[in-house]
Amino acid sequence: MSSNPNKRIIIAGGVAGGMSCATRLRRLSEHTPITVLERGPYISYANCGIPYALSGVIPTDDALHVQTPEKITAWFNVDVKTNTELVSIDRENKTVLVHDRISGQKDIMPYDKLVLALGAEPITPRGIEGGDGEHVFHLTTLADLDSIREYIKAKGAKTVAVIGGAFIGLEAAENLRLLGLQVSVIERLSHIFPPADADMVYPLEKELNAHGVNLVTDAAVTKILPNEVELASGQQVPAELVIMAAGVRARIDIPKAAGLQAGKTGLAVNEFMQTSDPDVYAVGDMVETPNMLLRGLDHPDKNKMLALAGPANRQGRLAADHICGKETRYRGNIGTWVCKVFGKAIGMTGLSSHQLDEIMGVEKGRHDWVTVHPVNHAGYYPGSCRLTVKIHFDLKNGKLLGGQVTGPENAGVDKQTDVLAVALTAGMTVEDLEHLELAYAPPFGSAKDAVNMAGFVAGNVLRGDVEIVHAADFAFETSKGRRKSLQDFFLLDVRSPKEFANGHIDGAVNIPLGDLRQRLDEVPKNKPILSYCQVGYRGYLGYRILKQDGYDAVNLDGGYRAVFEGGFDDGLKPVIKRWAPN
Amino acid sequence: MSSNPNKRIIIAGGVAGGMSCATRLRRLSEHTPITVLERGPYISYANCGIPYALSGVIPTDDALHVQTPEKITAWFNVDVKTNTELVSIDRENKTVLVHDRISGQKDIMPYDKLVLALGAEPITPRGIEGGDGEHVFHLTTLADLDSIREYIKAKGAKTVAVIGGAFIGLEAAENLRLLGLQVSVIERLSHIFPPADADMVYPLEKELNAHGVNLVTDAAVTKILPNEVELASGQQVPAELVIMAAGVRARIDIPKAAGLQAGKTGLAVNEFMQTSDPDVYAVGDMVETPNMLLRGLDHPDKNKMLALAGPANRQGRLAADHICGKETRYRGNIGTWVCKVFGKAIGMTGLSSHQLDEIMGVEKGRHDWVTVHPVNHAGYYPGSCRLTVKIHFDLKNGKLLGGQVTGPENAGVDKQTDVLAVALTAGMTVEDLEHLELAYAPPFGSAKDAVNMAGFVAGNVLRGDVEIVHAADFAFETSKGRRKSLQDFFLLDVRSPKEFANGHIDGAVNIPLGDLRQRLDEVPKNKPILSYCQVGYRGYLGYRILKQDGYDAVNLDGGYRAVFEGGFDDGLKPVIKRWAPN
Repeated sequence: MSSNPNKRIIIAGGVAGGMSCATRLRRLSEHTPITVLERGPYISYANCGIPYALSGVIPTDDALHVQTPEKITAWFNVDVKTNTELVSIDRENKTVLVHDRISGQKDIMPYDKLVLALGAEPITPRGIEGGDGEHVFHLTTLADLDSIREYIKAKGAKTVAVIGGAFIGLEAAENLRLLGLQVSVIERLSHIFPPADADMVYPLEKELNAHGVNLVTDAAVTKILPNEVELASGQQVPAELVIMAAGVRARIDIPKAAGLQAGKTGLAVNEFMQTSDPDVYAVGDMVETPNMLLRGLDHPDKNKMLALAGPANRQGRLAADHICGKETRYRGNIGTWVCKVFGKAIGMTGLSSHQLDEIMGVEKGRHDWVTVHPVNHAGYYPGSCRLTVKIHFDLKNGKLLGGQVTGPENAGVDKQTDVLAVALTAGMTVEDLEHLELAYAPPFGSAKDAVNMAGFVAGNVLRGDVEIVHAADFAFETSKGRRKSLQDFFLLDVRSPKEFANGHIDGAVNIPLGDLRQRLDEVPKNKPILSYCQVGYRGYLGYRILKQDGYDAVNLDGGYRAVFEGGFDDGLKPVIKRWAPN
Repeated sequence: MSSNPNKRIIIAGGVAGGMSCATRLRRLSEHTPITVLERGPYISYANCGIPYALSGVIPTDDALHVQTPEKITAWFNVDVKTNTELVSIDRENKTVLVHDRISGQKDIMPYDKLVLALGAEPITPRGIEGGDGEHVFHLTTLADLDSIREYIKAKGAKTVAVIGGAFIGLEAAENLRLLGLQVSVIERLSHIFPPADADMVYPLEKELNAHGVNLVTDAAVTKILPNEVELASGQQVPAELVIMAAGVRARIDIPKAAGLQAGKTGLAVNEFMQTSDPDVYAVGDMVETPNMLLRGLDHPDKNKMLALAGPANRQGRLAADHICGKETRYRGNIGTWVCKVFGKAIGMTGLSSHQLDEIMGVEKGRHDWVTVHPVNHAGYYPGSCRLTVKIHFDLKNGKLLGGQVTGPENAGVDKQTDVLAVALTAGMTVEDLEHLELAYAPPFGSAKDAVNMAGFVAGNVLRGDVEIVHAADFAFETSKGRRKSLQDFFLLDVRSPKEFANGHIDGAVNIPLGDLRQRLDEVPKNKPILSYCQVGYRGYLGYRILKQDGYDAVNLDGGYRAVFEGGFDDGLKPVIKRWAPN
């Protein structure tokens, strides 16, 4: 590249992927003419911060302007054209038609290499009437932010419906609630954060309720009226303001019109981020990239559009590398994310139970999961609290397949997610997790750290040292294809009488662990025993005593805490109808 | 094992490794007689929490009693004998002689398998006179805690000298300072936390000073007097109370007397934690285990005693597994740790610069490091602050060799250390770090996260996209065997005039990055250019401009921040005499 400094590079899109590409290109090639086209008035702004600017958690919008066109030009000598839209691509003549949204002028610009970073746009789901109402907003751009603010101020709106219960929807809900509005969140599927499992998101759903947010799941919006939103059920939800956060769609109309190949969800690219035309690259939310965990499988989600800032930034960098003759390959995604909802957080990496059920469904019993509730740091050091860590693994070889973590917002949910993400990327097994040497001091961790603990429990399952059942096994068909009934078991609660009195599974008998060896004659031999405690450990100890004394036993994964935190009642039935592998 | 339930197992030592072994044994083998001998009055207490109990940060000592003998007996049916000391081992007859420290009675107990978990004991360095004074204490047991408290109360001690500047010494110093005492820390070596590098611990040394702790390094104590401690320099340090935290020594006299093989620092064990006698196991602080990173090298530290709670716990578990016929191998250590010093924290995994210099010293130029100062989470989200991350890598193949992290105590120093620890365990390269998909949302991280950033910079060094120099290269012989002089360079400060005015390297010329392309004629072509900015990024951009325009240039690793945070003055000389690869 540096040998041919007269190549002209045009980058369409001036946020995340596009700007990463532009700045990397300049670093690698000082004298190549680089032009960035951005349809909006700003470049490189922090769109992830927009919900927090709405409430004032981020006190000024200025903070969101990560870079200005002036600074980019001064530092990187890149020609930044804001308010300039890509209209069409003429691949034969290697030109683009662009439209200046201020002057209205159209221009034809030649390129040697074209990088598309057009992003994704919010969708209005089909079947919703009134989605074009003046009180209906998205919350993805600085313009959206201004519009919503002005609307609230002008109309004195007091009620808002957020349509969509994933990242942007929930961040919007939290920040609108902080502004004092009466907030409803309407989610079409059975639970919020659909990629995660229902039992892991239930604590966050409770957190929303605790903060006065009205959460409605399994609910399709049919009509947006001036002051309400109407659901398929006929229910009306008050909404003087509507935030549409029901997903995004890759912006691929222009490249498709130019004959570039697209998949089901985004533009097709190779591992160097080249589209079907080797002189046209595409990066970020608009492209489909492979899921590393589905490699080798014939699965419809194998290549998928992924609206995450991290991959977008790295892809921009890789496209620049390849344009400059460096062959850095994109390795695919594992789908790592984290999100805060008021005082709680959830993180996830890899695949969840319901995703694995779907993917490995043809071969039942190939994967399992364990749930642990470790403390974030030594229990005796002030500020200690419990996390919930769920890891998924392959029963054939112990390979980690995914992990989910929930807990208080400042308790290291992000840390445990990251540890699992690195382990997953490295192809580690649950036994590798047992051996991880992690940083320990009382203010920061435990000698047996959270991920070690998850590894120990999963390792025990894998090696056959314990057989577990999940609360969900009683509510739904399990991944092993059978559904359990409480009636099949003698329910043994090995906690203290006080814990037992505070709530227990219907029909359970309380024999505290310390008494179990002396009271074994109270445990029947003609029925399998379901041993359980609060978080799973004493239940496991009870299991080991019983098993070695000839009883048929299982331990309840994650204990009673996993029952009430997972959204089940004391009959191990879903508290609310919406727990279901979807 | 379960097939022979009459084997008798004796475990000598009832904390960390010993109790992990006992409880795992019981889980695996319900009917095996297990006896735990503990010389002290308590088992399973949280010795890591002891310094914090001294100040009241941990408000009650009860919190430190993780398990009581009664609970262990009830839950695990283990015979716990506290105040019972191992006196000798008769391997031929497979018995141990034990001494009841209360009754004075001695007993002979037979064993089939013996597990030693005797731990380590604090040492008084040679050449210190008066180490047996009544005002000289260790701080490793609950008894020490009581004694120190009583002594302070009885004598009204107002001054204390802590001998030793590693974990326990610094935790002691912090908590004694919180009690209002006048505290001195005396470290024999050139800096605190000797395994880490001086430039990484300097911010923590400043933190000690900022909290009124008198830190004296490069200082050997020669004499402990009733009210002072005397140093080899003749200096006297006021000390009505002395805490001896100058290292520990494995408790191996008894096993050595029984003819068990020992290395230089601890008892020798195989990967199943068996000593030279296959019926005797040893775990925890008393054994030598291999450093995973020195595997295959002929290095004296290849097998070393390591006083860390995490490995001790895991080793206890492995010994139990092996006794019960499960072959789980100990994989070795990587030396991961974290420590808080007032409001700052430091974490480390793997090897540091000075350790690598020592190990790879015979082949100069085989390893290098980079320093980055990433934010803990999105800069625009409230509470953002900067970390310093230093990673070490092999210049031959890019393999990660170690990492060090410093920053404010609640800014995720532990998280970044853990991410690096997992990457190191997985054998990742710095290029693998570039591709890691970590959890991002504004309250938790950055789209290009801290470890990604370190990977990008190291990857650039590895691929030759940037040549860097370290501040230390000007002060000391570098790992590449050459020492640089400031006079050899044209010093180019590419920061803003305001930043320049706030402090800069002696003799530097300020050309802000945005002006550099227009003012290239001010940069000489006959001399190498040292480009630098605040944290390293703009310096790198300056480097790329210069390099591609035919200049001979280098970038200053970590920028000016690494200079003043690394303990160098504006002449790139050590601020204090003690920065030195030791």
